[in-house]
Amino acid sequence: MVLVAIVGGSGAGKTSVARKIAEHFADRANVLSMDDYYRDLPPGMTLKEFNFDDPKAFDFDYFIENTKKLKDGNTINIPVYNMVTCRREVGISTSFFPNDLVIMEGILVLHEPKLRELFDFSVYIDAPADERLIRRIERDTIERGRSIESILTQYRTFVAPSFRSFIEPQKYTCDIILPDGVSNITGMNIITNAIEKMLEINRQEEGK
Amino acid sequence: MVLVAIVGGSGAGKTSVARKIAEHFADRANVLSMDDYYRDLPPGMTLKEFNFDDPKAFDFDYFIENTKKLKDGNTINIPVYNMVTCRREVGISTSFFPNDLVIMEGILVLHEPKLRELFDFSVYIDAPADERLIRRIERDTIERGRSIESILTQYRTFVAPSFRSFIEPQKYTCDIILPDGVSNITGMNIITNAIEKMLEINRQEEGK
Repeated sequence: MVLVAIVGGSGAGKTSVARKIAEHFADRANVLSMDDYYRDLPPGMTLKEFNFDDPKAFDFDYFIENTKKLKDGNTINIPVYNMVTCRREVGISTSFFPNDLVIMEGILVLHEPKLRELFDFSVYIDAPADERLIRRIERDTIERGRSIESILTQYRTFVAPSFRSFIEPQKYTCDIILPDGVSNITGMNIITNAIEKMLEINRQEEGK
Repeated sequence: MVLVAIVGGSGAGKTSVARKIAEHFADRANVLSMDDYYRDLPPGMTLKEFNFDDPKAFDFDYFIENTKKLKDGNTINIPVYNMVTCRREVGISTSFFPNDLVIMEGILVLHEPKLRELFDFSVYIDAPADERLIRRIERDTIERGRSIESILTQYRTFVAPSFRSFIEPQKYTCDIILPDGVSNITGMNIITNAIEKMLEINRQEEGK
């Protein structure tokens, strides 16, 4: 299995890049979002008080344990996170099978060294801060019906500081940085070619 | 010919990356530094007053004209810039022949759209600002015997502002960003593989 990390700030275009790569490899690729591993919103805390961009918001232990199992060739059970209640659903999970290529995308997939070392290849998606903010505003007003005021308050309080402290530093732990995301055709081709080559090497090794 | 741009701040490790790629392709690659195209220090101006990191410091017209000639398959004459007098030498030049792979490195090789469009592939070398400053101090004290005070004054007055205004924005016009330079083995392999593939396509097209 080739395990690829797609990392970058919220609004950088990680999901589009992950999907585009997966499309290229069709049946041979699965995409997993790190958002599935969000911890429950602590009791008594409101959405506005919780920092969803802090490493503490994620259940890294479970994520690492599951990723190791997957690399060993096992189908894993992925938690189902409810974006409305901000809690993990009890009693249900999604089956995720070990494919030739597994792409894991999230704002902090390279944050934990123990998780980082499991990846064969990692890509940081870079986009200017203002462009990321624009996309976030568009997404949260249109898709999630939130007020502009609450979006900007959350951005200033949590998103921007966490980006600088935890997300951006991952630039220097990744293999390559892709500016502009999916619209960068040459960059996207280089990445899919690099993955193609890794899959080819894997096939040859398995054939031995 | 495959024409590759290597861009990034002073101290990011452009030269090492360009050399390493050229070594990989041996006789098939030539490296050209944009520093050869520095304009003369204006008469009456001292080194300390001149901004060597501003686009105006370079003779872009000549650089573009020469690069076009090179792409058309001509051997070109490259100016010889004297790093001590900060003037172009009169009456001498270096011959540079059109090889299969030509790598052009410099702080501003992607600055001019007319130059940018001539490249087949462009890589921005990313390194943290403090690491770039450390390398600059090391280089300028050891190799050039300059005082720490003059280095820091120049850095604060010219290098840092020009980096933010002109050099860093090139991140969003390049094809791919390489964090950490030559020490990033996976990233370097992806880049040499991508160039290998471009050379292969060129060979096939020429064979038709």
